[in-house]
Amino acid sequence: MKSAIGIDIGGTNTVIGLVDHEGLIIQKKTIKTREHESSEIFFKYLYVEIEKLINKSPDFKTLGIGIGAPNGNNFTGEIISPPNLNWTTIHVPSIFKNYTDLKVIITNDANSAALGEKRFGVAKDLKNFVVITLGTGLGSGVFVNDHLVYGNRGFAGEMGHMSINPKGRQCNCGKKGCLEMYVSAKGITQTVKKLYQDNSDNHFLIKLLEKAKLKGVNGNVSGRDIDRAFDKNDPTAKTLYDYTAKKLGYGLSQVATLLEPEAFIFYGGLSNAGNRVLAPTKKYLNKNLIPFQRDSIDLLLSGLNDGDAGILGAASLIFKSTD
Amino acid sequence: MKSAIGIDIGGTNTVIGLVDHEGLIIQKKTIKTREHESSEIFFKYLYVEIEKLINKSPDFKTLGIGIGAPNGNNFTGEIISPPNLNWTTIHVPSIFKNYTDLKVIITNDANSAALGEKRFGVAKDLKNFVVITLGTGLGSGVFVNDHLVYGNRGFAGEMGHMSINPKGRQCNCGKKGCLEMYVSAKGITQTVKKLYQDNSDNHFLIKLLEKAKLKGVNGNVSGRDIDRAFDKNDPTAKTLYDYTAKKLGYGLSQVATLLEPEAFIFYGGLSNAGNRVLAPTKKYLNKNLIPFQRDSIDLLLSGLNDGDAGILGAASLIFKSTD
Repeated sequence: MKSAIGIDIGGTNTVIGLVDHEGLIIQKKTIKTREHESSEIFFKYLYVEIEKLINKSPDFKTLGIGIGAPNGNNFTGEIISPPNLNWTTIHVPSIFKNYTDLKVIITNDANSAALGEKRFGVAKDLKNFVVITLGTGLGSGVFVNDHLVYGNRGFAGEMGHMSINPKGRQCNCGKKGCLEMYVSAKGITQTVKKLYQDNSDNHFLIKLLEKAKLKGVNGNVSGRDIDRAFDKNDPTAKTLYDYTAKKLGYGLSQVATLLEPEAFIFYGGLSNAGNRVLAPTKKYLNKNLIPFQRDSIDLLLSGLNDGDAGILGAASLIFKSTD
Repeated sequence: MKSAIGIDIGGTNTVIGLVDHEGLIIQKKTIKTREHESSEIFFKYLYVEIEKLINKSPDFKTLGIGIGAPNGNNFTGEIISPPNLNWTTIHVPSIFKNYTDLKVIITNDANSAALGEKRFGVAKDLKNFVVITLGTGLGSGVFVNDHLVYGNRGFAGEMGHMSINPKGRQCNCGKKGCLEMYVSAKGITQTVKKLYQDNSDNHFLIKLLEKAKLKGVNGNVSGRDIDRAFDKNDPTAKTLYDYTAKKLGYGLSQVATLLEPEAFIFYGGLSNAGNRVLAPTKKYLNKNLIPFQRDSIDLLLSGLNDGDAGILGAASLIFKSTD
């Protein structure tokens, strides 16, 4: 039987999976990304773990190693100064050449999630869709005419950095009003802080911010805490999600006006809010479309287990290349 | 030799061309679109003219009839309540069935221009690009991975209706802040009116508005008049184009962040302004991109004669279908 190694490199953890061609995860291992002194040592250790997985499954013939990583570039094979890691730009296939002759293909984490949804998830029968990963930031992988959109140099699909307001919130990327400054753990935390300015005696906001502070300087508020308050009809939680949905719906409308996809598919931490955010988002999306484009675009939740889309998508890079 | 009929249906005029497979226009005829009592009578008259063109060129074997029209839908073959024409939704292949067995393919006018640039113009060697038609409004045709983007139901590519400001100018489509309300003959006229409010003694603005008024209720200011003033270093003309470039650059950045095309290609009346608008637009585009996406996107002018892109693109629909 044929298999592929799928690797999801994250800022904190890296997940390695041995995946069969039907998307079954045969073996899985999680290691720390940041604990290692340098990227060289990390990849050396990573390959030891890959070899263990392959050796534990002698019935499978491994076709290659697919990798999804922040700032991974499919065209060059590089990971370009990844955020949250103290690595410089590295060329991944060259590193692996020292250890193995297996084919190595790389892409960025959101593209990897989109490939996973296409091959094994809810996008199997879709040709035009956008997968949106809602974590600390907002990533996206775009399919048009049944193919992933890489753009001219492999840098396409940065929906989180589409500006929804030229005078909006300052983003780390240097621009203003980027969608992820409103719709992501980071974005919602900013919204909570903004609401707190005018409501400094609001217990719910105080609790959210205190808990976030305990996580460290860049700690974000907990989506699950907002979900719970929302379900108890807390008016502040309702306001928070309605504001988030308004920004998300407007952002989706920009993409939909241009690409008219069949669906937007949501994955990652914040997507656990589900219809609490997606129902109002749909309303705001349609409000911001030309009449003849309205009411035909689905907002779906990922069909893959939390944490699996990354490795399944990374493995898809290999299966796709051998189709 | 093989040929195709390319038809560009506009709000005022319709141009019919007999085009060979290298993009040479063998015969061309312009007729009025609006003079006819109904769409049925218009198409009857249109077919008489098509037949004349075919009969005048007996050396050519005509492969089919391609049509670009406002609100033309490639998937359904319909022209859907076209703006500026008192037609209801009509199914074009059914109408032509009464007259001919030739293959009939339809698309919208901006998609047609993009197909023309791809087959015969400056986009020949490009795989990812956007053609922007700057006329009364702003239309666009988008190529991704070497294919035109139609979207789920054929309604993709409506860049003129991507909103650049949720609280912006009211558009006829019902939305606010649509790009074409700033960047098009209609948009610049609005900007002139806005500037005039604070500068009611400005002779240049008064002249532009008076001349526009002579064209009728919906008359727009003349781009050529602004070009001439700009070339004489008129500060108001400079302000006008800088404002327009700022909005256009921001709009392009939204598309570029998502699709990372090789180029944007400009066609139509307002594109005659050339670098007067495009040079500052490039500056504003780059300012609104993530650093790693910057400085790699070209802003080009159409390589096709004014008025020809429409018929060449429409003819391409036929050539492409027989490739």
